[in-house]
Amino acid sequence: MLIEAAHKPHERLGQHLAEDMESVNTLIRERMASKHAPRIPEVTAHLVDAGGKRLRPMLTLAAARLCGYDGPYHIHLAATVEFIHTATLLHDDVVDESAQRRGRPTANLLWDNKSSVLVGDYLFSRSFQLMTDTGSLDVLRILSNASATIAEGEVLQLTAAQDLSTDEDIYRQVVRGKTAALFSAATEVGGVIADAPADQVKALFEYGDALGISFQIVDDLLDYWGGDATGKNIGDDFRERKLTLPLIKAVAKADGEERAFWTRTIEKGRQEEGDLEHALVLLNKHGALEDTRAEAIAWADKAKAALTVLPDAPIRHMLHDIADYVVARLN
Amino acid sequence: MLIEAAHKPHERLGQHLAEDMESVNTLIRERMASKHAPRIPEVTAHLVDAGGKRLRPMLTLAAARLCGYDGPYHIHLAATVEFIHTATLLHDDVVDESAQRRGRPTANLLWDNKSSVLVGDYLFSRSFQLMTDTGSLDVLRILSNASATIAEGEVLQLTAAQDLSTDEDIYRQVVRGKTAALFSAATEVGGVIADAPADQVKALFEYGDALGISFQIVDDLLDYWGGDATGKNIGDDFRERKLTLPLIKAVAKADGEERAFWTRTIEKGRQEEGDLEHALVLLNKHGALEDTRAEAIAWADKAKAALTVLPDAPIRHMLHDIADYVVARLN
Repeated sequence: MLIEAAHKPHERLGQHLAEDMESVNTLIRERMASKHAPRIPEVTAHLVDAGGKRLRPMLTLAAARLCGYDGPYHIHLAATVEFIHTATLLHDDVVDESAQRRGRPTANLLWDNKSSVLVGDYLFSRSFQLMTDTGSLDVLRILSNASATIAEGEVLQLTAAQDLSTDEDIYRQVVRGKTAALFSAATEVGGVIADAPADQVKALFEYGDALGISFQIVDDLLDYWGGDATGKNIGDDFRERKLTLPLIKAVAKADGEERAFWTRTIEKGRQEEGDLEHALVLLNKHGALEDTRAEAIAWADKAKAALTVLPDAPIRHMLHDIADYVVARLN
Repeated sequence: MLIEAAHKPHERLGQHLAEDMESVNTLIRERMASKHAPRIPEVTAHLVDAGGKRLRPMLTLAAARLCGYDGPYHIHLAATVEFIHTATLLHDDVVDESAQRRGRPTANLLWDNKSSVLVGDYLFSRSFQLMTDTGSLDVLRILSNASATIAEGEVLQLTAAQDLSTDEDIYRQVVRGKTAALFSAATEVGGVIADAPADQVKALFEYGDALGISFQIVDDLLDYWGGDATGKNIGDDFRERKLTLPLIKAVAKADGEERAFWTRTIEKGRQEEGDLEHALVLLNKHGALEDTRAEAIAWADKAKAALTVLPDAPIRHMLHDIADYVVARLN
């Protein structure tokens, strides 16, 4: 691995955990293999090698190391978390009928929906094998609960889409499902496998939960905010009629005429030229973007506050900086 | 429950295990609920209430009871097995683009592919929660391995479809994946939870494996054999260009002209009127249907032979009769 100065906090954490991450990558390559069905590693490699930040497995390693773990199973757990994440992405792209992810064509486009569904199932099963290897029933409980919350959140998102009555409570449940559940499980199992005291395990859960919520709010905000190199185009969510937090806040403050606008563009999906620009005017008028940003920052603050009961070590400071970095994308 | 004379062996087993099956049904209804996403129990109920035979959960209960189990967890395991089965059906119908199952419209048709994918994921997660409840790592290992084998078999089937080089080895791997892996896991975990001796657990695995293979071969044969009230139309697999055992046997014995016929109809999919009739002529000419039937019977015999090391009790005899019944559909 090339040693160079890393400025982004998740990159610094990655360097700090470089050896562990190498082991995770080796295990992932091993376990994504299939003796009988070569399509499986082909599809998986397309996603796994696509150069994501590997933030989730890194969180598991960080939590375990921070709590003094020196056994082998944090590697299995990190690979588990990455497999669940990859399976979710495969199924998400089928559900969203996406054609691109991280600037590359999606697996459902390169192969087909069938392969994405079945390879996703394979990775889910593999993730359960990996966590079974750890021999920890607590870990199995946490991760199977997280999986159920993820799927539940996705179904909720599906049924809440295009429905103007979606409120901030529903939004938070969706966000917990689609993002925060895996973040919080990733950090919590790191503490559990290290046999950390209950208050530290709780803190790790709270850090992951708040970080995940902040992360998703920022992601949803960037869709209207722009100026970020995420590869997202401004207005994608608007065009796909997704009720994310900025929109929910604007709809809550809408007068009669504005409500008619949201009903036409989001519920009925009859969008015309200039609608996105008008939506942005309404979002700004009601301070929806600023309020959403404040909420993302409050969750990041909550994440940082949770860290205080954890051992005062370099990893803790990197986790702290990651929470700052998540909302710094909005500067 | 109405007490009446049951003649089919799985119905007799169902009556014998009626109380346990009631507990399984209650647990299934409990665990398919979702506080946040009502779409989940709607979709699940459509399948769970569709009146399948519940053969797989019954096998788990039977195995546990036969080995003297009197704890509560065979109920969880039976519900687990039914959830994995239901999740697989939901995803299968998306992959096969099916419009009907058991004579009713499929969930992907009534709702959409998205719901089928995500509700399937939810049920998979729920099944892992259920097996985690048992506290048995052996059970978790067996069922997570089975899940991986199922997904691998489905991917293999996808890539082997329409490929005339598919041989009996590949067919057997596909069948183990799509059917036998869950049958053998269902019976094996019943023995494991009962803490049965190793030779009995092995026998239960072998019974489930051979029964599952026999079951699937019969299913594939009935597609050309007919005369069964399964709701399958003769020739469905032919029209869908599926290389099942009868076809594989006929292709293996094909002369040049026959091979050209299979290449056109199965590989290229250019089917014309009269092709199914000609396919049946070729299947009969090479004894492919009779050979396939003999193979199904041999697997049923293997299933029955495995039972001999198990306790000599009424359940064992019912399991024996179920193996006979599977192939009796061909008489």
